[in-house]
Amino acid sequence: MTKPLSGEPALIEALARIFGAAPPEVVLGIGDDCAVLDLGGPDYLLWTVDTLMEGVHFDLGYTTLRQLGRKSLAVNLSDVAAMGGTPRYALLSLAWPKERDTAGALELGQGLAELGREYGVAVIGGDSVAAGGGVAVTVTVLGTAPKGEMVRRAGARAGDRVLVTGPLGEAAAGLEVLKRRLSLEPALREPLCQALLDPRPQLQAGRLLASKRLASAMIDLSDGVATDLYHVCRASGVGARLHGAAIPVSPRVRAVAQILDQDPLDLALKGGEDYQLLFTTPPALAETLDRAFRQAGLPPPLFLGEIIPGDAVLLQTSQGMQEISGAGFNHFRLDLEGGSV
Amino acid sequence: MTKPLSGEPALIEALARIFGAAPPEVVLGIGDDCAVLDLGGPDYLLWTVDTLMEGVHFDLGYTTLRQLGRKSLAVNLSDVAAMGGTPRYALLSLAWPKERDTAGALELGQGLAELGREYGVAVIGGDSVAAGGGVAVTVTVLGTAPKGEMVRRAGARAGDRVLVTGPLGEAAAGLEVLKRRLSLEPALREPLCQALLDPRPQLQAGRLLASKRLASAMIDLSDGVATDLYHVCRASGVGARLHGAAIPVSPRVRAVAQILDQDPLDLALKGGEDYQLLFTTPPALAETLDRAFRQAGLPPPLFLGEIIPGDAVLLQTSQGMQEISGAGFNHFRLDLEGGSV
Repeated sequence: MTKPLSGEPALIEALARIFGAAPPEVVLGIGDDCAVLDLGGPDYLLWTVDTLMEGVHFDLGYTTLRQLGRKSLAVNLSDVAAMGGTPRYALLSLAWPKERDTAGALELGQGLAELGREYGVAVIGGDSVAAGGGVAVTVTVLGTAPKGEMVRRAGARAGDRVLVTGPLGEAAAGLEVLKRRLSLEPALREPLCQALLDPRPQLQAGRLLASKRLASAMIDLSDGVATDLYHVCRASGVGARLHGAAIPVSPRVRAVAQILDQDPLDLALKGGEDYQLLFTTPPALAETLDRAFRQAGLPPPLFLGEIIPGDAVLLQTSQGMQEISGAGFNHFRLDLEGGSV
Repeated sequence: MTKPLSGEPALIEALARIFGAAPPEVVLGIGDDCAVLDLGGPDYLLWTVDTLMEGVHFDLGYTTLRQLGRKSLAVNLSDVAAMGGTPRYALLSLAWPKERDTAGALELGQGLAELGREYGVAVIGGDSVAAGGGVAVTVTVLGTAPKGEMVRRAGARAGDRVLVTGPLGEAAAGLEVLKRRLSLEPALREPLCQALLDPRPQLQAGRLLASKRLASAMIDLSDGVATDLYHVCRASGVGARLHGAAIPVSPRVRAVAQILDQDPLDLALKGGEDYQLLFTTPPALAETLDRAFRQAGLPPPLFLGEIIPGDAVLLQTSQGMQEISGAGFNHFRLDLEGGSV
């Protein structure tokens, strides 16, 4: 049983009202992927924190502690990527059950440090506390973004194209494979499990989009397209129309959907934890965008649909049009115990 | 059942080795109260994170959610105080069980925001995730300290006096009162429970000591004097001798010790969570120190003993000398279930 990280929008908004107005050097507070501070100098400071809880976000039956360490940092780096920033430093707060061998905590630390090295992030502090229940890993990350180059959730305009940096539903399919112990040939199985257990934050793509001003709005896919694109739409005051036929679903995701007798679009659009970047781009920049990605050696962004006036996320398929706004995983709405193991 | 926040030193040190060397702008990494960054400008950036776990650090049977919100910020502000800094911003990461009414999460947010307003700290971001077990509250805080005025754990020298900003053992006595349901008259009971449930970070004293350069080393008392002074001694390469007769134990702590048939010095020196500041001062500054505190309207610091050569924390009483290095609460060594309720 594993659920993506997911905030409950109504709760977050109520908390934002309680926390009240921020001082002027706070460029962005609650409601984007990172809080953003202007403390002087040429760069903004980006700041994010995420907690992964055993039994909710990971299952140590199929996640190694090294993978957990990597992922606890990766989900934070993905938030920095979503604003076009560069992550710099991380702190770890580890809640560790006393009955667990502390050697495991070091394995987790090794995974964290390893991913940090891969992305140039220094883990500069850490603390451990006793855990009453399972393992809980909180990581907080500081990053930077040049002031003129930051991308927010707000900024999408009607007519913009909706794109994504990679295929969708891989992690959701991986979760089904592991949870239901689906038998699948290794060539299909491995990439799906890796997408779930060891996601790669899209930092290079995020920086490219920000530095070349190619994205009008951006978010990382933690809760699924239906939910995360809805966040972008709400922040930007627009709607979106997705084209079912265009949604990038890999043959391996289709294979899992077929075994489960599910619509592959459900995995692709409502499944969480892809940690790809979802962004919007004015149509006039389409060619520049493709060229920039090609020159950087990155796979070309994949088309999902377009921004429209309104406030809903719509999905156009051969069966017609349906609204899917916010229909991703949401732990406060879905049953945590849902899904057979 | 409640335990103080406490890192396991051997685990922290092993993690520090794994995380490796930090880039040059990292002034301090693992091993002090905050990580310290020099990102340019006149101030250092101080950064800390702490997690409070239900069943380990708090019991919702006797802690209100408002108090929990306040305390989750207070323990972080205390870390900033211990370096002489000024806390500025906070992020909340809240793990909330789905079976709990989310109204409680707002109550917690109100407590957090309220303490923030009292100390000039803006809560600028927050996220919620589902909790598998109990409530877990992680807060991360950024603060600043002028470059010339920061105080570290390292810096104590033989001959320095060991002082503390307030009486000891109040929170530990409060924990005993609540856990064992001791009957005690309200005038004694209330201050003890408040010390445990609603600690006040000593920010004014920390800033005063740092700005007037009156402290050679400093730490906040989260794990108890025996453990926290030992951290200072290890970081500074010195030992310490405490004078049993001088230890500031209030009549209310003595009353609790008497009911429990315990030595009040055990509550005062081994009990955690006082969140007072423990610091060392060269003897030549004794008079300046007292005057500075008087002029600021702060209670005068209380004398515990002195720094000596060596590497042990010693306690001198009428019964002789004993070593108490690191004898505070430590969740990886003590039984979490210890103590009858």
